[in-house]
Amino acid sequence: MIASILSATPALFGGETPMQTRDGAPVMEIGRKADQTTIEGPAETFTGRVTISGQFQREAPSRVGGAIVRFEPGARTAWHVHPLGQTLIVTEGVGWTQIEGGPRLEFHAGDILWCPPGHKHWHGATPHEAMTHIAIQESQNGSPVTWMEHVTDEQYLGGTPAAEAER
Amino acid sequence: MIASILSATPALFGGETPMQTRDGAPVMEIGRKADQTTIEGPAETFTGRVTISGQFQREAPSRVGGAIVRFEPGARTAWHVHPLGQTLIVTEGVGWTQIEGGPRLEFHAGDILWCPPGHKHWHGATPHEAMTHIAIQESQNGSPVTWMEHVTDEQYLGGTPAAEAER
Repeated sequence: MIASILSATPALFGGETPMQTRDGAPVMEIGRKADQTTIEGPAETFTGRVTISGQFQREAPSRVGGAIVRFEPGARTAWHVHPLGQTLIVTEGVGWTQIEGGPRLEFHAGDILWCPPGHKHWHGATPHEAMTHIAIQESQNGSPVTWMEHVTDEQYLGGTPAAEAER
Repeated sequence: MIASILSATPALFGGETPMQTRDGAPVMEIGRKADQTTIEGPAETFTGRVTISGQFQREAPSRVGGAIVRFEPGARTAWHVHPLGQTLIVTEGVGWTQIEGGPRLEFHAGDILWCPPGHKHWHGATPHEAMTHIAIQESQNGSPVTWMEHVTDEQYLGGTPAAEAER
């Protein structure tokens, strides 16, 4: 595969210099699907089963990073804040999200969400359907997120019509 | 739908203030799939048939923007440069890309590409297969891209094994 002709280096991290072939020609850096790592969402920052793949973080002067995140039914992030906001491109399933102090909203595959900078929020699957989104966020002073406490079952299910929550 | 309870405003552009319900509670901004505009890629900056949907551009202090871009077989961008680089998350099909002075590379659904800041490049479908990617780029001084000349058929097909190009 093409990786074998490349002189470099970390697959999904890129700075200002392009990768090069052995003879010094510049090439786009391609993080091949087969080479991407999939990790479990850590218990410190997620509830339930979450898988994270395709994670990338660009280097200065760029500051964007992202990942593909799959939430099994009932899984969700902890409460958190992005210093420069977060865009979620929903690729599969049905999800829930809430900004602190506001109502929980439902969203679906194909929707594109925006949480503005500095607002405490969470997002995840619904109790009975999985959800996958591409998460895109920018780092400020090297940090794309501040994690907070978990979303309790009461918070997660709060506002759900009883018939739906008990299904 | 939820849009009817919102007091605002442009669906896919977001600054620092969250959208609000009529009673002033903050909510995530959700650009619903059904409300997203699909446009044709302009002839000035693309060759062949290209469709662009889900376009978003975040406002300062954020600077990230993106879109879902589908290239029909043979379609490609013009040569261009991103001042802060570009990430491409390939969601469908098979594509080609090239940085000026380097070889053309092929990529597939699931691959994640990085073109570093300031490097003249193009990307698109292969001659016989469509390709869709999510493009993510950051703006510098309000501009995410500098467009240049079109990629000629000779440039696009250059280096293709004859049997493949003539198929």
